[in-house]
Amino acid sequence: MLEKLKQEVYEANMLLPKYGLVTFTWGNVSGIDREQGLFVIKPSGVEYDRLTPDDMVVVDLEGNQVEGRLNPSSDTATHRILYKRFKNIGGIVHTHSSWATSWAQAGRDIPCYGTTHADYIYGSVPCVRNLTKEEIDEAYERNTGVLIADEFEHRNLDYIATPAVLCKNHGPFTWGKDAAEAVHNSVVLEEVAKMAARCEWINQENQPAPKDLQDKHYFRKHGENAYYGQSEKG
Amino acid sequence: MLEKLKQEVYEANMLLPKYGLVTFTWGNVSGIDREQGLFVIKPSGVEYDRLTPDDMVVVDLEGNQVEGRLNPSSDTATHRILYKRFKNIGGIVHTHSSWATSWAQAGRDIPCYGTTHADYIYGSVPCVRNLTKEEIDEAYERNTGVLIADEFEHRNLDYIATPAVLCKNHGPFTWGKDAAEAVHNSVVLEEVAKMAARCEWINQENQPAPKDLQDKHYFRKHGENAYYGQSEKG
Amino acid sequence: MLEKLKQEVYEANMLLPKYGLVTFTWGNVSGIDREQGLFVIKPSGVEYDRLTPDDMVVVDLEGNQVEGRLNPSSDTATHRILYKRFKNIGGIVHTHSSWATSWAQAGRDIPCYGTTHADYIYGSVPCVRNLTKEEIDEAYERNTGVLIADEFEHRNLDYIATPAVLCKNHGPFTWGKDAAEAVHNSVVLEEVAKMAARCEWINQENQPAPKDLQDKHYFRKHGENAYYGQSEKG
Amino acid sequence: MLEKLKQEVYEANMLLPKYGLVTFTWGNVSGIDREQGLFVIKPSGVEYDRLTPDDMVVVDLEGNQVEGRLNPSSDTATHRILYKRFKNIGGIVHTHSSWATSWAQAGRDIPCYGTTHADYIYGSVPCVRNLTKEEIDEAYERNTGVLIADEFEHRNLDYIATPAVLCKNHGPFTWGKDAAEAVHNSVVLEEVAKMAARCEWINQENQPAPKDLQDKHYFRKHGENAYYGQSEKG
Repeated sequence: MLEKLKQEVYEANMLLPKYGLVTFTWGNVSGIDREQGLFVIKPSGVEYDRLTPDDMVVVDLEGNQVEGRLNPSSDTATHRILYKRFKNIGGIVHTHSSWATSWAQAGRDIPCYGTTHADYIYGSVPCVRNLTKEEIDEAYERNTGVLIADEFEHRNLDYIATPAVLCKNHGPFTWGKDAAEAVHNSVVLEEVAKMAARCEWINQENQPAPKDLQDKHYFRKHGENAYYGQSEKG
Repeated sequence: MLEKLKQEVYEANMLLPKYGLVTFTWGNVSGIDREQGLFVIKPSGVEYDRLTPDDMVVVDLEGNQVEGRLNPSSDTATHRILYKRFKNIGGIVHTHSSWATSWAQAGRDIPCYGTTHADYIYGSVPCVRNLTKEEIDEAYERNTGVLIADEFEHRNLDYIATPAVLCKNHGPFTWGKDAAEAVHNSVVLEEVAKMAARCEWINQENQPAPKDLQDKHYFRKHGENAYYGQSEKG
Repeated sequence: MLEKLKQEVYEANMLLPKYGLVTFTWGNVSGIDREQGLFVIKPSGVEYDRLTPDDMVVVDLEGNQVEGRLNPSSDTATHRILYKRFKNIGGIVHTHSSWATSWAQAGRDIPCYGTTHADYIYGSVPCVRNLTKEEIDEAYERNTGVLIADEFEHRNLDYIATPAVLCKNHGPFTWGKDAAEAVHNSVVLEEVAKMAARCEWINQENQPAPKDLQDKHYFRKHGENAYYGQSEKG
Repeated sequence: MLEKLKQEVYEANMLLPKYGLVTFTWGNVSGIDREQGLFVIKPSGVEYDRLTPDDMVVVDLEGNQVEGRLNPSSDTATHRILYKRFKNIGGIVHTHSSWATSWAQAGRDIPCYGTTHADYIYGSVPCVRNLTKEEIDEAYERNTGVLIADEFEHRNLDYIATPAVLCKNHGPFTWGKDAAEAVHNSVVLEEVAKMAARCEWINQENQPAPKDLQDKHYFRKHGENAYYGQSEKG
């Protein structure tokens, strides 16, 4: 069942330790088959060096475990809500990567200070508020997803152009067209978070990059006039 | 004598360089056999790449060396007191890991700024005061253990829920149900210490994570209602 | 065509991941054959672990792609202008290396705080202003090169003695007598940027190294009275 | 000639890249044969991955090159003066290691903030002033050695107990009973410099460790009452 997707999600999970984004089991990647309405996600608490494609767990968009002998990630309900609300994404990553998590713990949006950021993420990376005690008690992981999606609506953000979010006092989620791209965006976010912190320490009155420069870099890589890379010309 | 425990303690010691927690010989791990009242600890000043299971030293809870041709760690008396006072722990680690030691040198408790911390450590990581000249002269290493245990009593802390401490101007001790878990908690502490410093630098008026969020994360991994990982459901 | 130069430029490109200067494809190296007026540059967006010497692209100084089945780097026009304006350089590197980019994002020149800097770079590393919207719209990458060269003229800087520049909110360019030396200077810049940030944080009123010391170190490695290394005496 | 010493000094030099203390050729180690009054030092500007024991250069205490086909390190005169003035040391290291150099660039002594420092270095690591233009012009490298030794006399420091110094706007020198111990002290200094910076950032009013604690740690590892390690008891 979904063998190809399981393999992809397995491989995307294994990229997290490769890129230094996880300590122990502090991360998970999922990928979705939109036609079947099923997503594949890492099992909870399983060490990366013991993980196999067969360990992947299949879950439907109502949260039922459809296949897999192991419990899915404890963050599964967050993934599920994000898939329901962000209808054009194909993969999601959650980590406690060090720099992005430091910003999350600081409770601040990450301003766009440069083209590394603008090449991938349009505008600031938003940091959503803490859940209330009531929201936590009702359904912590699900409400985390609801909060993220609501915040994107509230701020009128395009989730395709802003494929990353910070949850206050917790850590980042990123997403993409598939699991591999979601991991790619996690790597970008970690690098961007690191350089944003450092440039603020180097210049305590630092300002975001000019909007024109942000636009230039974002649109030379995305959209119909993109000219970065090989894919547009073959 | 205690061959299985020696092997475990040896392996736990070897995790310290693997996880980047030690420079040279600046760390030691021990594990205890509660039934026999004996613990096994790294020998003093022996390089990790020359260490063997046979080098491990066996010590009783009165501080007598029961087996081993090498001197036990110079911090043995601290381990001994912690085993006597914290009756439900099975392993102890001391390191000079860089970020935790930086907090110890700063003489500050590490506030709980996020769920990475709350997943493993309930509340702040306490930093105990310096020993007085008299305490140092009388029995430096033993009194370090006494000070830690007294501080936990004084602050009314549960040593199971707070498996880490900083000794001012020195470095961290962590513990757990066995030597391997004690090392695991050392890795957690180092990561938590790193992110706590950085998030304060990113937001100079940073506040601890809300108590509700701390509780949620601690108790989804610990206690009877835990649902993280595979062990509770098989 | 230019097989030797392609090999050299390929090898110089492969040094970027070796020295930790690039994430994904965020960097490019070129080298020029001054006699033929042709330069060789990395193709755009190709992963380093798939790159081969044959992938290198040949471009002339008017910007025409002379050989190569792949698109050249999106930064090709910047390289082209630098080769035209800085007539004695043989290789150019662009990266988003973390510390140099943090200074670029901070919009500050890197002061010469020590001999590590003075050994290779005479005086501050300049940070050029943002391009205007008009300059971006007209020809972003070309005007980046024009801005750099104009700034060196305006500040009366010798581009041989100052083989590095920061583009505000973007990242560094370095150059040298060939592609390998340009990469060498990128490594130097990254190390210098890191230590300059840290020494400012250690001493918030930090001052540049005395001019006499800067001169001593620069000129013991460069120019006719140099005595560092083996080359002068054979 | 001095084959054993050449091998030792070669091996000590090769530890610098192993421990991450050097970029390119930015470091050198020497060792002395006190009976013959000759020291062995790395050749100038030779890459570590091409270095062989035969490349080592033999120099006498008057600065004459006694053997070796390559130029000795450009810092040879500094080593020479230190050997003449610090009569009980057997090895010297100079690097531009990142954290120690950041303190040197900041022009500050490194306070003793903890036991990691006190275990090896008694009191602050001194930072010596810049040389004057006259001192630079007369004999830069030699006068660097003179300045260090004069400063130790002026501050009444024991060079055995304080085996490290920072040269302002330049970098550190360390020494020891032989070349290997001098490298060991370089590793210690780098770690100590890193944690000293970080603990100041964590606590902006940070104070040095109490003198009693410094004494306890220094003297449990050094001198006649030392009890750390195995050597005292065999």
